[in-house]
Amino acid sequence: MNLKDTIRDVKDFPKKGIIFKDITTLLKDPKAISIAVEELYKLVKDKKITKVVGIESRGFILGAALALKLGVGFIPIRKPGKLPAERIAESYSLEYGTDSIEIHKDAIEQGDVVLLHDDLLATGGTMKAACNLVERLSGKVGQISFLIELSFLKGRENLNGYDVHSLIQYDSE
Amino acid sequence: MNLKDTIRDVKDFPKKGIIFKDITTLLKDPKAISIAVEELYKLVKDKKITKVVGIESRGFILGAALALKLGVGFIPIRKPGKLPAERIAESYSLEYGTDSIEIHKDAIEQGDVVLLHDDLLATGGTMKAACNLVERLSGKVGQISFLIELSFLKGRENLNGYDVHSLIQYDSE
Repeated sequence: MNLKDTIRDVKDFPKKGIIFKDITTLLKDPKAISIAVEELYKLVKDKKITKVVGIESRGFILGAALALKLGVGFIPIRKPGKLPAERIAESYSLEYGTDSIEIHKDAIEQGDVVLLHDDLLATGGTMKAACNLVERLSGKVGQISFLIELSFLKGRENLNGYDVHSLIQYDSE
Repeated sequence: MNLKDTIRDVKDFPKKGIIFKDITTLLKDPKAISIAVEELYKLVKDKKITKVVGIESRGFILGAALALKLGVGFIPIRKPGKLPAERIAESYSLEYGTDSIEIHKDAIEQGDVVLLHDDLLATGGTMKAACNLVERLSGKVGQISFLIELSFLKGRENLNGYDVHSLIQYDSE
């Protein structure tokens, strides 16, 4: 089974001229979702991961499944105002303006080796901010994984020095 | 292990006077997250479920894990403007005003028996809207499950006629 065949292209979403890679067609296919988790698990199973961090909100979907398979805890990184307890934030640049993400202060401890997971690598801005959050809490980024990588946007350059993996790559729009 | 002991009370979140039930302390505990999924799975494993629907965004966390354990596909119900393909929407009442949620039109087919999952049952408004979405697409609601139920808010009354389960109940604030 080729996982790429289960991804749906949606034209002009979220705005005109963009071709959106829709993962909901992968997720609803029992074989595809199971293969995706299995492949992501195989990439990371020997990395001595102690926690999985998923980025809101599509990163929660397979992130938690990976944590359960690895037998470790799951940590959500969320948009501002969603996490209730003491937290730290990181900002990152968007095409116009900035956005930010947050993590609970007690989510990561010294010695933690973290798998960071999100569904899609575009420019890498969000994931770089997520790495900063983990490292500010004295965690080590053990691996970064994505379901999809838009290789033509060169997001990997933003994540230099990390062990970065993706299951499906697109070399052009 | 008592799962309730892993839930953290956060005072005055999201606003003064509210005691927020924080599940992140359950999720980060490897034993607790694993027991939670196992218990939710046991409740539903004989219900001939063909799809699991999780509600954005905390419902994605254990919803997808349950889909994988059941060997079925996972369907996200999302806030407006997030799903890229053809979709339908349902509105529901909030304390002040209304909100709405959406599902892809091709997410559910006639004959599907659906497990609907979310982290918390409060008044039940969101979940009732989710049931309506599934039924408008000719799916059958096979079970509804929550990690936490705020029993004193009587959300079950909104979900009359459905098979409703929760792992942790609070009889008072």
